[in-house]
Amino acid sequence: MTQITSLQNPRVKAVLRLRDARHRAKQSRFLIDGARELGRAIQAGVRLREVFVCRPACATPDAQQVLRMLDRCGAEILEATQPVLEKLTFGQRCEGLLGVAETPRRGLDQLVLPDRPLVAVLQGAEKPGNVGAVLRSADGAGVSALIVADGGTDLFNPNAIRASLGTIFTMPLAAAGTAETIDWLRRHGLAVYAARGDGSLPYTEADLRGPAAIVLGPEATGLTPAWSGPWLTAVRLPMLGAADSLNVSATAAVLFYEALRQRSAG
Amino acid sequence: MTQITSLQNPRVKAVLRLRDARHRAKQSRFLIDGARELGRAIQAGVRLREVFVCRPACATPDAQQVLRMLDRCGAEILEATQPVLEKLTFGQRCEGLLGVAETPRRGLDQLVLPDRPLVAVLQGAEKPGNVGAVLRSADGAGVSALIVADGGTDLFNPNAIRASLGTIFTMPLAAAGTAETIDWLRRHGLAVYAARGDGSLPYTEADLRGPAAIVLGPEATGLTPAWSGPWLTAVRLPMLGAADSLNVSATAAVLFYEALRQRSAG
Repeated sequence: MTQITSLQNPRVKAVLRLRDARHRAKQSRFLIDGARELGRAIQAGVRLREVFVCRPACATPDAQQVLRMLDRCGAEILEATQPVLEKLTFGQRCEGLLGVAETPRRGLDQLVLPDRPLVAVLQGAEKPGNVGAVLRSADGAGVSALIVADGGTDLFNPNAIRASLGTIFTMPLAAAGTAETIDWLRRHGLAVYAARGDGSLPYTEADLRGPAAIVLGPEATGLTPAWSGPWLTAVRLPMLGAADSLNVSATAAVLFYEALRQRSAG
Repeated sequence: MTQITSLQNPRVKAVLRLRDARHRAKQSRFLIDGARELGRAIQAGVRLREVFVCRPACATPDAQQVLRMLDRCGAEILEATQPVLEKLTFGQRCEGLLGVAETPRRGLDQLVLPDRPLVAVLQGAEKPGNVGAVLRSADGAGVSALIVADGGTDLFNPNAIRASLGTIFTMPLAAAGTAETIDWLRRHGLAVYAARGDGSLPYTEADLRGPAAIVLGPEATGLTPAWSGPWLTAVRLPMLGAADSLNVSATAAVLFYEALRQRSAG
């Protein structure tokens, strides 16, 4: 087994290019940092092309577990030195592993809903980290699926992966345009609740027990005008202090867990 | 009125030193970036020593409002060019204003509680941004006060100020050691609920209507052993997905709004 020792190695350079969103889009590839994230990707069946490994740096239990999964993940395994792995890794959390994966298609037509689904919609995601944070709360609260509407093409951004703790791979997820998303929600007969500062209904009075969707907009600009009409109920969270809104991921957590509370009661 | 044009100006250099936490601690000074944050600090009576202003760069309504408050904020006003302001500003959000403030003392003895208080405790805050995010949700849900226990001395870190949207100045806030905090909670007769992954009680079954405290620990390491005993109830949030915990700010938002829901019902 040859080991990659040089930062000038063409395979290393190819990975570094994938740190740029345009290259990720062009090549339909993305990078998975973090042992836990990589483990969840493998378990979720994400197609890995390459995994860079520095075995002596695989110190955490999560990394050790991923090492045991590498044989059957179908990826080419590239041994590399620690300086190479550190150079390739996003941020400062080198756990001795880096995956290069094929960007999965995430279309609305791929979503399979359970009975009485609770769907979350994140419109115009401002920051990839917000997508990840919302995913993580959705995962915890048992949300059926998350749709990113008009969120751009870079769904598998490193900040989204990291903030999601890898649940971006395990949560049913779709990306679509706003019009297409609205059409899909209505065709599936979901009661649509949109979080708005000026919502007419306190969120605790929304009936979230049946098939429902919770729509969240960007903090700075709010939901676009398309998110209004008689097919939608605008709900608000009480804001008792100096600020006039919560962080979108806090709003998401409160609404998802309120739905779970209602669904678990009685 | 003289204008500061040089990055070599000693007043500019003194401000840049305050970007370092050790200098903030030594000088008992901290910096306030962001017009909204500065406005909230002035309204909350934070003692400003200096405000650097580049009037042409004060484009936002928030910045314009702060300009109108400058006369009565008691600070020395230092006019500076845009390049100087940009150099002084944290991150990339130069709104034409930067405040230098005296670090306020935030002791437990200063907290004034209302009837039936709901106190939040954040133990061992890992990241300043988390303190800010928890503050923002606490502000929204009408939490009476936030205590940062063993969170280090750098309470007014720029990330904490920013993530709080300036509610760090308007929310009743204290920093204290863990033992002192526990003693204070018990002396005030608060029912203490600690969020733990292995908590015995689902959080929705906790009675948060009376005088109560909600204790949150760091995600990575959890609450320290001091946070256990018959005087405390460990509560858990359901975790239905792949991840075994929520972000601490998501946990905080869910618990604070559950308390508000219980307090508003009936």
